[in-house]
Amino acid sequence: MNSFGRNFRITSFGESHGAAVGVIIDGCPAGMKLGEQDIQPLLDRRRPGTSRLTSARNETDRVEILSGIFEGRTTGAPIALMVRNEHQKPEDYGEIREKFRPGHADFTYQEKYGIRDYRGGGRSSGRETIGRVAAGAVALLYLSDHGITINGKILKVHGKTDPDEFEQEIVSAKKAGDSVGGIVEITASGCPPGLGDPVFGKLDALIAGAMMGIGAVKGVEIGDGFAVTEKFGSENNDPMTRNGFLSNHAGGILGGISSGQDIVVRIAVKPTSSIAKIQQTRDIHGNVVEISVVGRHDPCIVPRVVPVAEAMLALVLMDCMLEQMKYH
Amino acid sequence: MNSFGRNFRITSFGESHGAAVGVIIDGCPAGMKLGEQDIQPLLDRRRPGTSRLTSARNETDRVEILSGIFEGRTTGAPIALMVRNEHQKPEDYGEIREKFRPGHADFTYQEKYGIRDYRGGGRSSGRETIGRVAAGAVALLYLSDHGITINGKILKVHGKTDPDEFEQEIVSAKKAGDSVGGIVEITASGCPPGLGDPVFGKLDALIAGAMMGIGAVKGVEIGDGFAVTEKFGSENNDPMTRNGFLSNHAGGILGGISSGQDIVVRIAVKPTSSIAKIQQTRDIHGNVVEISVVGRHDPCIVPRVVPVAEAMLALVLMDCMLEQMKYH
Amino acid sequence: MNSFGRNFRITSFGESHGAAVGVIIDGCPAGMKLGEQDIQPLLDRRRPGTSRLTSARNETDRVEILSGIFEGRTTGAPIALMVRNEHQKPEDYGEIREKFRPGHADFTYQEKYGIRDYRGGGRSSGRETIGRVAAGAVALLYLSDHGITINGKILKVHGKTDPDEFEQEIVSAKKAGDSVGGIVEITASGCPPGLGDPVFGKLDALIAGAMMGIGAVKGVEIGDGFAVTEKFGSENNDPMTRNGFLSNHAGGILGGISSGQDIVVRIAVKPTSSIAKIQQTRDIHGNVVEISVVGRHDPCIVPRVVPVAEAMLALVLMDCMLEQMKYH
Amino acid sequence: MNSFGRNFRITSFGESHGAAVGVIIDGCPAGMKLGEQDIQPLLDRRRPGTSRLTSARNETDRVEILSGIFEGRTTGAPIALMVRNEHQKPEDYGEIREKFRPGHADFTYQEKYGIRDYRGGGRSSGRETIGRVAAGAVALLYLSDHGITINGKILKVHGKTDPDEFEQEIVSAKKAGDSVGGIVEITASGCPPGLGDPVFGKLDALIAGAMMGIGAVKGVEIGDGFAVTEKFGSENNDPMTRNGFLSNHAGGILGGISSGQDIVVRIAVKPTSSIAKIQQTRDIHGNVVEISVVGRHDPCIVPRVVPVAEAMLALVLMDCMLEQMKYH
Repeated sequence: MNSFGRNFRITSFGESHGAAVGVIIDGCPAGMKLGEQDIQPLLDRRRPGTSRLTSARNETDRVEILSGIFEGRTTGAPIALMVRNEHQKPEDYGEIREKFRPGHADFTYQEKYGIRDYRGGGRSSGRETIGRVAAGAVALLYLSDHGITINGKILKVHGKTDPDEFEQEIVSAKKAGDSVGGIVEITASGCPPGLGDPVFGKLDALIAGAMMGIGAVKGVEIGDGFAVTEKFGSENNDPMTRNGFLSNHAGGILGGISSGQDIVVRIAVKPTSSIAKIQQTRDIHGNVVEISVVGRHDPCIVPRVVPVAEAMLALVLMDCMLEQMKYH
Repeated sequence: MNSFGRNFRITSFGESHGAAVGVIIDGCPAGMKLGEQDIQPLLDRRRPGTSRLTSARNETDRVEILSGIFEGRTTGAPIALMVRNEHQKPEDYGEIREKFRPGHADFTYQEKYGIRDYRGGGRSSGRETIGRVAAGAVALLYLSDHGITINGKILKVHGKTDPDEFEQEIVSAKKAGDSVGGIVEITASGCPPGLGDPVFGKLDALIAGAMMGIGAVKGVEIGDGFAVTEKFGSENNDPMTRNGFLSNHAGGILGGISSGQDIVVRIAVKPTSSIAKIQQTRDIHGNVVEISVVGRHDPCIVPRVVPVAEAMLALVLMDCMLEQMKYH
Repeated sequence: MNSFGRNFRITSFGESHGAAVGVIIDGCPAGMKLGEQDIQPLLDRRRPGTSRLTSARNETDRVEILSGIFEGRTTGAPIALMVRNEHQKPEDYGEIREKFRPGHADFTYQEKYGIRDYRGGGRSSGRETIGRVAAGAVALLYLSDHGITINGKILKVHGKTDPDEFEQEIVSAKKAGDSVGGIVEITASGCPPGLGDPVFGKLDALIAGAMMGIGAVKGVEIGDGFAVTEKFGSENNDPMTRNGFLSNHAGGILGGISSGQDIVVRIAVKPTSSIAKIQQTRDIHGNVVEISVVGRHDPCIVPRVVPVAEAMLALVLMDCMLEQMKYH
Repeated sequence: MNSFGRNFRITSFGESHGAAVGVIIDGCPAGMKLGEQDIQPLLDRRRPGTSRLTSARNETDRVEILSGIFEGRTTGAPIALMVRNEHQKPEDYGEIREKFRPGHADFTYQEKYGIRDYRGGGRSSGRETIGRVAAGAVALLYLSDHGITINGKILKVHGKTDPDEFEQEIVSAKKAGDSVGGIVEITASGCPPGLGDPVFGKLDALIAGAMMGIGAVKGVEIGDGFAVTEKFGSENNDPMTRNGFLSNHAGGILGGISSGQDIVVRIAVKPTSSIAKIQQTRDIHGNVVEISVVGRHDPCIVPRVVPVAEAMLALVLMDCMLEQMKYH
């Protein structure tokens, strides 16, 4: 299933080492000003090689708009966005062709499909997120025009909460041939009340699905999240006042519908699965073997998850904004 | 949005104090033996009044099969399941008609729809889960026939991990006119590898959406969840051996696809929003007022969430089982 | 697939001789005045036994609203509508249990599902349309509030175009133990321009699917339909004038989008498959046998198809009205 | 709505004079041999300039596979197919920029979106069908591997049934600055019984929607179609024999489910809307004006509709084949 959303519906395609990756957006309102310059910056934030903390690859990842724009504006037609994969040089994939990398989708793809594009992880590669991020940039533009802003930040890396320590944790893990994870918090401000649908289209349910669908994410919280399980109801309920609420333990969502407060989401990002340290695994023939996953891998993908999570939250909110218009 | 699932698709209806609640299942395979006796037990577990820990209401909640069964077997036609609401006695809703209960959907429904069925929470009531649970019972039957079992348990109540303390925490909160929450863990055993679809139909994303869509749930974790953010990759990756894995930090899902290991999910349940303690809120006229939510409310809904969460996991897995058959 | 529509989404259930038939409407705007009295009249038009031309059964088919209404208005919650099947007397189904009735779904259901509810056709019975018609009545109410009216009429019965001859054709066929079909035309007036979506959500495509999905319909035309194939472009194009069009060969739809003119649809209804005349068929054991389908069958269902077709057109237009609101 | 299908789901993009047109296929089974050479031939049949009867443009329309193939086989990942638009030379669109061409989507797009890519019809151009045809070629390949073949042919041009007269009718219309339409029949042989779903997923309903969604199609018939309305039930029912049916008036579909007989579909194609003859229309300012639509337009698109209709039928059958696998 490579589509997401009901109203602002995106369909993603592409593998790490195929010809291109990209996305089609179906349902974007007509008349929006949109150009490649509106999309590229978020893609650039997602790209590796932008800081010491991310991998050393230098991918340019230039987005091309293939359709849906006329004289600088959206027309209501589907918007196809494509990024050519530039560095498809022949590499030695001998090892990962036969060995299932621990923590990766290698084994499960092989089981599911009976065939696996092992080059750089194929469809399960993080490069797949280019499509989502490009679509998310369009959604962010629309939301911004409607007074909604989305901001992500790193709360923790490897258990540390002081940003000064983040880089040190990552560099230290890298030196050890290892990797670390962390926690990201995304906040949406300016959302009108009323977004989200009862029962199976709850805003928090849509957000949870969107976030857990980002590779490496293993947990999602809304508002106070797991901490609420240690509180009394009288502590956790947000009292109301004339113009809103006195607190925001709920994270901006009540009964699955936005309340008008900030929407607050936190996600747990696992340590990168690709590590140089030797691990035990299996090969496709059933033999137990050792593997050291070498290459240009981020020892911590937490920083790169931030724009992806922002994009996913934008896609959910955009979709709910359009959904909500049906009934007004 | 009152439908859930792509292949085993359920559509739920009904309010707390309307004529009935229920569900239609569309896509159930033909030829399955199915009767009301297969559905009632899970509904009974969801029902209040079954223990000292839940509310004192005595609802019989008898399910009736309206369609889809012929000579004791499913026919491939939609299965409609209905539970009549029996205790619709005229009550005094004066207070909640005008006041938004903190922590509830009262305010957001009013904002979204401009009208609100305030009787017992209407559509946002926990009674809505009857439909999901009834459908989940059918899914559980199918899964059981295919070697898959699902079990839920309470891990924590109000921070306590010792089951001997659960009741005490709940009783104590109730006496104080307050409420508590907790953590539930659901495990599915016997799943074949290959369930779930890359990118936007990942098994963990579907599970996260399903779980967060249960009222009162504020967090979802798969496998080691948030704890992975403090581990090294070398600690978190599950090494493989000839016949499987040496550990299960991943919670049975790799790259969004089941690996064949146990699927492990944990959810954070907030303390019940309805409490007798006086809280500050707003009424529909904009006045700041006080409210004490009296009535037969569970001081802790964690026990009743267990069968609902089991049902939701069953619905996700059932849907993925059918999805997977398309490609084999 | 028992659901229809994207925004005003209905899900139908029930068999001819099961406990009940009905429908859930998901996505009805909140705040609409709605009661059973708004739905019953269209159901009554669909009912058999209302004229000499239809079958002699006297079914009362009283609709019950199970959910979604509060103080006489829709709330945005799903509206469940149910009609109990009253005449489930034990009958002798011996013959149709074993023999596939020509022209019916008996053989194909058996092939598809390996099991078949043969009582009165089960799910393939015309009684299934009760759900659609009930939902259509709600859509018609909404459309009427928005200035859109839908009218169906019989154009032909058994090739005759003079209404004075319709009854005679039907009575004559009945006497011969045979049946006849005809052509129905449905017109929607007052539609705003802009309904329908390019490429795969074209208004005419949605209408064609909706109409062909009515049992016994074998052909669908929009506007001049098949007759356009004998015209020149210069005859068929509708010239425009300041405030609209000078003709309506297109039937109110251009490029799959409503133009503001009347939407005109014609459907071909086959002669009723159930006839007393002896026909050759096969039984479930593979033997070639004879069958005479006796019982209270309409010798011509064309009159009863009219309200069903009106309902289906209403459902399509309602759905497109809501879809269109997303972008305004 | 630019997506079609539930299981073999395609999403189309692109405008006549944009950068590219194309399609993403989501849900293609893994392991199929597939290359550009399998797709190009059907695209070539759709292309203009292939005979005296079609327009003189010489578009090469080379398809490029962007994703989803690894070592010559499908992987289960989405297959993105793209055709670059080559002849985007600056043209004088002055006239159609301001005037609504009769019979075209110009007026309705303007009404719907408030903006319109008038270059060559933009999204409403026949070039959009490149995406469907490319996806249809993949479906045809799969169907062929499963014993199903699809063949289309022209039954009538401008009322003439003798193929020797088709060219003459078209040439004659062209000389007069006019255009003609016709009737196309598509037959699918080798379909297993059981395809299609009762009620809202009937095979004939899906086919009718797919066919009516092709630009210029104004009518759809299954089997004997409109002619059945002049027959008795005893003439129209197809008697069964031990191994099948004695006739095929039903066109291979009973109760919305394939019977195993040939599926027979006919569609009415209107005369091309673009004609040189002077017509009356309106401009965007509301003035009544005259227009002569000059350029390289087919005086009859019936021949080019044939591969598009074959592709659409293939997409429907492919989707139903996968749907059917869920329940076996």
